[in-house]
Amino acid sequence: MKKIKLSLASGDSVVYCGEGVFEEYSRKVADGRQIFIVTDSNVNKLYGNLVSTCFCDAEVKVIPAGERSKNPGKLLEILDRMMKSGMRRDSLLIAFGGGVVGDIAGLAASLYMRGAEIMQIPTTLLAQVDSSVGGKTAVDFKGVKNVIGTFYQPKTVVADPMFFKTLPKKEIRCGLGEVVKYGALDEYIYEKLLKNISRLYSVDFLGEIVYDCIRHKAAVVQSDERDVNGVRKTLNLGHTTGHAFELFYGGASHGDYVLIGMYYELLIAVKRGICGGQYAENLKKLILKVKGKIPVYEDIQKAAELAVYDKKNEKGLISLIVPCAEGKTEEIRLTLGEYIAELEEAVGELR
Amino acid sequence: MKKIKLSLASGDSVVYCGEGVFEEYSRKVADGRQIFIVTDSNVNKLYGNLVSTCFCDAEVKVIPAGERSKNPGKLLEILDRMMKSGMRRDSLLIAFGGGVVGDIAGLAASLYMRGAEIMQIPTTLLAQVDSSVGGKTAVDFKGVKNVIGTFYQPKTVVADPMFFKTLPKKEIRCGLGEVVKYGALDEYIYEKLLKNISRLYSVDFLGEIVYDCIRHKAAVVQSDERDVNGVRKTLNLGHTTGHAFELFYGGASHGDYVLIGMYYELLIAVKRGICGGQYAENLKKLILKVKGKIPVYEDIQKAAELAVYDKKNEKGLISLIVPCAEGKTEEIRLTLGEYIAELEEAVGELR
Repeated sequence: MKKIKLSLASGDSVVYCGEGVFEEYSRKVADGRQIFIVTDSNVNKLYGNLVSTCFCDAEVKVIPAGERSKNPGKLLEILDRMMKSGMRRDSLLIAFGGGVVGDIAGLAASLYMRGAEIMQIPTTLLAQVDSSVGGKTAVDFKGVKNVIGTFYQPKTVVADPMFFKTLPKKEIRCGLGEVVKYGALDEYIYEKLLKNISRLYSVDFLGEIVYDCIRHKAAVVQSDERDVNGVRKTLNLGHTTGHAFELFYGGASHGDYVLIGMYYELLIAVKRGICGGQYAENLKKLILKVKGKIPVYEDIQKAAELAVYDKKNEKGLISLIVPCAEGKTEEIRLTLGEYIAELEEAVGELR
Repeated sequence: MKKIKLSLASGDSVVYCGEGVFEEYSRKVADGRQIFIVTDSNVNKLYGNLVSTCFCDAEVKVIPAGERSKNPGKLLEILDRMMKSGMRRDSLLIAFGGGVVGDIAGLAASLYMRGAEIMQIPTTLLAQVDSSVGGKTAVDFKGVKNVIGTFYQPKTVVADPMFFKTLPKKEIRCGLGEVVKYGALDEYIYEKLLKNISRLYSVDFLGEIVYDCIRHKAAVVQSDERDVNGVRKTLNLGHTTGHAFELFYGGASHGDYVLIGMYYELLIAVKRGICGGQYAENLKKLILKVKGKIPVYEDIQKAAELAVYDKKNEKGLISLIVPCAEGKTEEIRLTLGEYIAELEEAVGELR
């Protein structure tokens, strides 16, 4: 078991990582308290029994699996059920599931009576390495991802690789999208990924890399909780373009779009002379190893236009975080016109 | 002009107080930025022209005046308009109006892209002395007041007494409810109120007392931003019973209910020997001077039951903050049964 502590302006957070932490720590935190659990229909099928054994008497709200549940209506349903079940500020909300469950339950916790305690129990690789740590909560609204949300730290995060055993390969690949992103941010993770490129899907390897990714993210969040000084923004690598494509084309997973976005943005960085050589080739290799073929998009202009909604943009410029060398990144700021031109060149190269 | 600075974990806040600060500071903060203003139908009738002169090109969202607008539907309308008008994180939201406008716009600011900058320009006495400072934001939901909300600091508060000139006497009385509450919390304000009891409605006096109240509140918020260590809870004096009556009976203003709640809770404190003598008599005199007659309620049991929803309650006990001596308060915790019995005795005394 490994433990990572975050001391933040808005409160402290403890992350427990490793096989067995679910059994040991989630019960300890929940012991003797009034519990309200948010989970989704897929996770409930697999772990409903485990949950009712571990947290008997808990109120459970099951939302339909999938990103579509991440909307204000579902958020209000959760808050309504919390009120009806008499949850107080000192009760405990548990987010048991993937990123959607974590994001919407995190937002519900931050809003309920101006802040109820939440424990995140992420069951997917994506949620463990990314969304469950760092306190970003959100729902989508009118087609814009994460446009309604807060910064609100979970008091406890329990990241147990036992849940990966029931995770479909597609979901592992989705999480690997973010893991590869960490590879572009952290030299240690980069080396580890290259060295283990043949066993990226092994549960043992994943259990190990989850800890490394959370450690990296915790350090980032520690120096820039509210995403204001540029440090946390680096986690957005691949996401500006990834989000825009995800919104416009849809169909693939978030992690797939992160990889696709990373690939396009890497081509832009190489073309501009920011990144290159063996390092750029290795990153491409890692991306392709996980994602397989990178789609050659038409309608790239319309897709690109959706990037202007990104929260990270300032003064109307579109911001891309691109890799430049091992563990190092740079920010490129482009007008929409420049961005479209760069993407069109990248498409040309992929054709 | 007086200036009060708050340095808080979630960010810094500056309050400008006094005649002329609207003209001087609100323009300065807004200069050259993209502006979105939330206001209500009453304020818009009176100051719509002023607003469009001061903040030309601003997008203005007018919500119907009154507490009923403080709901999740209106919140989403505001967020939707913010999106449609292309607001970014570095744009400026302005809450221009009373407590309802400040609370809902504050919540919208805290949620929009996980936090947009907000300037509070409170136009009522109630909003100036209470809701605009300290970062509590909220909407009501399913009949429960402020059950959905956040802690989110306005970067700037502009509290100008010029707005009191158009404020109906009823609204001044409403704000005086909170002012008298500060009298029970702060010896300096208490003395000032007693000394000026004949000119409580004078705009000059109000301009002065607003600063004293904000100064008191700022010190409280500074030592307990997130309402966790008991200091901020003192601001709840009169509110547990006031809120319950407001919910159950309705019809009068929030400030009236604070005064009614204070009076009932004062009777409880006196009966329990916590408060008494000339001090208790003076507080009663101040309350009656502003509120006039205190209503003798029937159905007190049903009204009291609504107090169990109060966020301040822990372990199922109802919490009352009551005055005990000049500038000093105490907390009483009661079961629902005890609370009902105490209220019934108070009603008996009022009959």
